Amino acid sequence: MPFAGGEFGLINRIKQIAGLAGSGVELGIGDDAAVLKPPAGRMLVTIDMLVEGVHFDLSLINYFQLGTKAMAVNISDIAAMGGNPRYVLVSLGATDSTTDQEVEELYRGMVQMARSHGASIVGGDTVRSPGGLVIDVVVIGEALHPVTRGGARPGQLVGVTGQLGASAAGLAWLKAKKAGLLPGGLTAGLEAELIAAHLTPLPRVAAGQALMKSGAVSAMIDVSDGLASEVNHIAEQSAVGMEIELKQIPIGEATQTAARLLGVDPFRWVLEGGEDYELLFTFAADNLEAVRESLALSNTPFQTIGRVLPKENGVVLIDPSGARRRLESRGFNHFPV
Amino acid sequence: MPFAGGEFGLINRIKQIAGLAGSGVELGIGDDAAVLKPPAGRMLVTIDMLVEGVHFDLSLINYFQLGTKAMAVNISDIAAMGGNPRYVLVSLGATDSTTDQEVEELYRGMVQMARSHGASIVGGDTVRSPGGLVIDVVVIGEALHPVTRGGARPGQLVGVTGQLGASAAGLAWLKAKKAGLLPGGLTAGLEAELIAAHLTPLPRVAAGQALMKSGAVSAMIDVSDGLASEVNHIAEQSAVGMEIELKQIPIGEATQTAARLLGVDPFRWVLEGGEDYELLFTFAADNLEAVRESLALSNTPFQTIGRVLPKENGVVLIDPSGARRRLESRGFNHFPV
Repeated sequence: MPFAGGEFGLINRIKQIAGLAGSGVELGIGDDAAVLKPPAGRMLVTIDMLVEGVHFDLSLINYFQLGTKAMAVNISDIAAMGGNPRYVLVSLGATDSTTDQEVEELYRGMVQMARSHGASIVGGDTVRSPGGLVIDVVVIGEALHPVTRGGARPGQLVGVTGQLGASAAGLAWLKAKKAGLLPGGLTAGLEAELIAAHLTPLPRVAAGQALMKSGAVSAMIDVSDGLASEVNHIAEQSAVGMEIELKQIPIGEATQTAARLLGVDPFRWVLEGGEDYELLFTFAADNLEAVRESLALSNTPFQTIGRVLPKENGVVLIDPSGARRRLESRGFNHFPV
Repeated sequence: MPFAGGEFGLINRIKQIAGLAGSGVELGIGDDAAVLKPPAGRMLVTIDMLVEGVHFDLSLINYFQLGTKAMAVNISDIAAMGGNPRYVLVSLGATDSTTDQEVEELYRGMVQMARSHGASIVGGDTVRSPGGLVIDVVVIGEALHPVTRGGARPGQLVGVTGQLGASAAGLAWLKAKKAGLLPGGLTAGLEAELIAAHLTPLPRVAAGQALMKSGAVSAMIDVSDGLASEVNHIAEQSAVGMEIELKQIPIGEATQTAARLLGVDPFRWVLEGGEDYELLFTFAADNLEAVRESLALSNTPFQTIGRVLPKENGVVLIDPSGARRRLESRGFNHFPV
């Protein structure tokens, strides 16, 4: 029988795993509501629901990894505003076959990721969900001057941290492996890199905060739905056009090798794959040095990949031959039309 | 096909229904995170997940009612701390057969309940949930001096607002009606009262705030899982015993009549039924007048139903004959042992 000790036994175990409340937590799990010191500056709040069979496949990811990823995805939204994550709430819908140990592993993963960014789990809900596991994570953060998607201006440059496409490459690799179709040719190190990019992505919290504090960036978003979708989000919210140069997009060796071995165009993973959780941002050309210095503080690589244009120019992808084509927003969309 | 226009079309419709952002909302639905003015005093946060087939039955409740109830349940947790609800986030997992119109009705219900208490919907997530509808609501509130479950002291009195058992009576009545087993004998007015108590309960926000501001109450909780469970929660968190006098518990005429007609002991509904969303609180006998005056401001009836005892006395129910028996916490528990 799942959850020996019933719901209240489970809540007590979750409290133990969550550990001591962090700073600002006056009353954590166990009353009608958590009692918290309000965050400094502006308060940021984000929420993301993950559903079994839609957002994750338990034959490809274990509960600890799922916990770290569910938390990382939300912390990444705070990072994309230049914020500092403080407080976390988690609603868990567990199936009738979910075991105590699986729930505990899930929370261990969530707590590890939250703590490594200074955030505490302060509350939540645990319910039965016979139709499949559901995890809903809320992160409350703070930022003195949050960076929105709406501040890009024509003439500015477009930058992105890290590398793109690795998460989608990792997913394709895991699926090929599960289907027994795995080609050889990828070293163990490169394979581990891709799988980690997909299963246990790291949010760019330090980079986001440094960029916010520098005052050098005008708009920012995290790459959760693929580069094409995120570029279009900034363009729409800022009422601008944008051009992205394909050859400038940073793609790692592991992703390129996997693409070759699996016979896939790596730019599909970059543009439509999503889940990279890198930061995409815009900045005035005069601020290039300030951006470079901010990101150097957290050893975060970045690359300039395009320019902001007037709105009438639309959103454009420039291929290596110099040909321009409209970049449609075709990132992962939960309800395809 | 559900959700014409895809996820982003749906988000736009939800933004329209949510309407203009309330005070303190600098950036609502549509960026990586909502940007909010931090609440005054202490920040309160609560979250509740409702799963189709576990917490609600779509053959008994419509989408608008479900929206108001999902919101009321969470606002009630803020009310139970004496707080003022400010900001709301909603995650919705919709099935493949959920229609646009159903989602809109659900949000209309949520927005109406939130607005009537001065709170705005500032963000959320909308995803596919093939296994059944899932609604997860987060409410962020504020209180200068939140009232927890932990402040009850021996010698104090126990009070409760309104009437108990009506929600469980309403559910029993709806189930009997659906099964075609409905007895006659309940007037249309009393029937409507019971059904409203179950489908569209009202959180005691004004009463909770008045009690908090009076400084007269030492512990408070909302009656969501049945009186037996809530009394035990206060006893445990305050490290005290408690005695409740059965004959003092306020039960309305509609509940008593339905109990007689359905052949049920109404105290089962009171003690184990739950979902009344009344406030249960403790206070020093010297503060009785202050409690009375606070509750009179919002025309909230209340009744003194027991006393706080030293911990070693345990939690006790006194029946009308004066016999004492241990009051077990057998309220609704999502994972029965």
